[in-house]
Amino acid sequence: MKTDLECIPCIINQCVTTLKLTNCDEQTKIETINELMDILKKIDLDLPPANNSDIVYSLCREKTSVADPYLKLKKKYNKLALEFFPDLKDLVHESKDRLYAAIKIAAGGNIIDFGINVNKGKAIDFELIKHEIENVPFAIDDYEKFKRDLNKAKKILYIADNAGEIFFDRILIKEIIKQNKNVVLVVKSGPIINDATMEDAVFAGLDNLVKIVESGSAKIGLNLDHLSEEFLKEYKDSDMIISKGQGNFETLHSIDHNIYYILKAKCEKIARELGVNYLDVVLVKRKPSWGSDKI
Amino acid sequence: MKTDLECIPCIINQCVTTLKLTNCDEQTKIETINELMDILKKIDLDLPPANNSDIVYSLCREKTSVADPYLKLKKKYNKLALEFFPDLKDLVHESKDRLYAAIKIAAGGNIIDFGINVNKGKAIDFELIKHEIENVPFAIDDYEKFKRDLNKAKKILYIADNAGEIFFDRILIKEIIKQNKNVVLVVKSGPIINDATMEDAVFAGLDNLVKIVESGSAKIGLNLDHLSEEFLKEYKDSDMIISKGQGNFETLHSIDHNIYYILKAKCEKIARELGVNYLDVVLVKRKPSWGSDKI
Repeated sequence: MKTDLECIPCIINQCVTTLKLTNCDEQTKIETINELMDILKKIDLDLPPANNSDIVYSLCREKTSVADPYLKLKKKYNKLALEFFPDLKDLVHESKDRLYAAIKIAAGGNIIDFGINVNKGKAIDFELIKHEIENVPFAIDDYEKFKRDLNKAKKILYIADNAGEIFFDRILIKEIIKQNKNVVLVVKSGPIINDATMEDAVFAGLDNLVKIVESGSAKIGLNLDHLSEEFLKEYKDSDMIISKGQGNFETLHSIDHNIYYILKAKCEKIARELGVNYLDVVLVKRKPSWGSDKI
Repeated sequence: MKTDLECIPCIINQCVTTLKLTNCDEQTKIETINELMDILKKIDLDLPPANNSDIVYSLCREKTSVADPYLKLKKKYNKLALEFFPDLKDLVHESKDRLYAAIKIAAGGNIIDFGINVNKGKAIDFELIKHEIENVPFAIDDYEKFKRDLNKAKKILYIADNAGEIFFDRILIKEIIKQNKNVVLVVKSGPIINDATMEDAVFAGLDNLVKIVESGSAKIGLNLDHLSEEFLKEYKDSDMIISKGQGNFETLHSIDHNIYYILKAKCEKIARELGVNYLDVVLVKRKPSWGSDKI
């Protein structure tokens, strides 16, 4: 997926948000934003927005010396999600179709995101997420295909998105494991925005459930130029991928594999790519028309 | 009111939106955005955001030779508002307190705005606006003060915001006139975003109701460096001002006069200044703590 010109203000917005979290002085903020604007003048619009957004986080790290500006927020949302976890389990227990309920829950968890414009780092209302899980249907719902593919699959690669959200993913992973499937979870190799790392996955107890591998980089989505050996091995072995969130959607968009995307369309660009409305939630099987690249 | 760093991406976003409306080629878009980013590196954060946003519209005009990119949208929304106008009148007729209903309607009209992030130039759902008028209370409601001040006032300056919205303003202006008050309407001297000009006010039939004066510039809000003689005369003569929308709020913020602001907080910055939540609607009398500047 290519970057649009409308991604430029969004990328700068991510920089402003990140700088606020570093508590650096005003002059550093101004200098960083100005340097970012200089870099963006030579933006490569052929790259996915995720790759161009990566610039923000390396620049902020360099300018402020804060390695993980979102650390506190990640811990906060992990803790909140942990408290909310029994409610999520109840939602599955009370449902007629446990697998479908678990997918809806995993999708609901994708509301937790500070990288872009939607929540702006505010306190997340878990009751609101629960309301969305129970009442808002998927704008694209490829559940029947998902069930069929899952039935046939042996190894499923589950590519996580955010901290906090990973507790919601655990619900879906558990349901898949119950069907005697081999699930491998993919997390980031280091801190990038509020994305889940090994530490978050372990905090959510996922190391007791599945094998966890690191992506190979601390970059948004799956940076195809920096994939780890262990990821590549599991990827080649997998017959189904569950990809969470926009960053993974952007970077895996043209990859020809049996991928199901679960995400909330948090910007107009992604909504357009999917043919849905802004803020819609989807469970969508990738379409061959999206590309035929190989990893 | 000063500009925040978070206004920078918003200003660039306004540029992207405006360029799309000019139908210029991709290269012109890129060049314009790059030039804007160069200008923003020297942004004067002491100015109101409105003044810094003005840069976008003069730059787009210069680069694309399109004098009024929002012309079609203004005409479209004037037409839609005209169709909806009988419904607005019914809302007043059916209400227990006609003046309050008219203020709520004028506030509801402030949803029509393409300059910033909320509607993104999409079709506006007038039923949704009606729902907001009828069901969403003001987050700050200085109606009792408003009534008292209006009772004492002789001449009221009504500073309009957008095309389309001006039909909603007409409802409130009519109610005020009924109380034998002298109302003078202020519109822009030329095209800026979707702001109401003399043409829009005449299309809404306001020239048959009140005297209309032009602000003195085609700039966002009331640009204090470019006020017209006729505006200044009416301003000095007025004992109450009704100011619609964010642009006027930003530029009149520090001006010591008997001003009532009616607006929807369409960004976090304005919401913070008002002490309300993003997207709240207010009827607020200006506070002396906001400043003591004079026009």
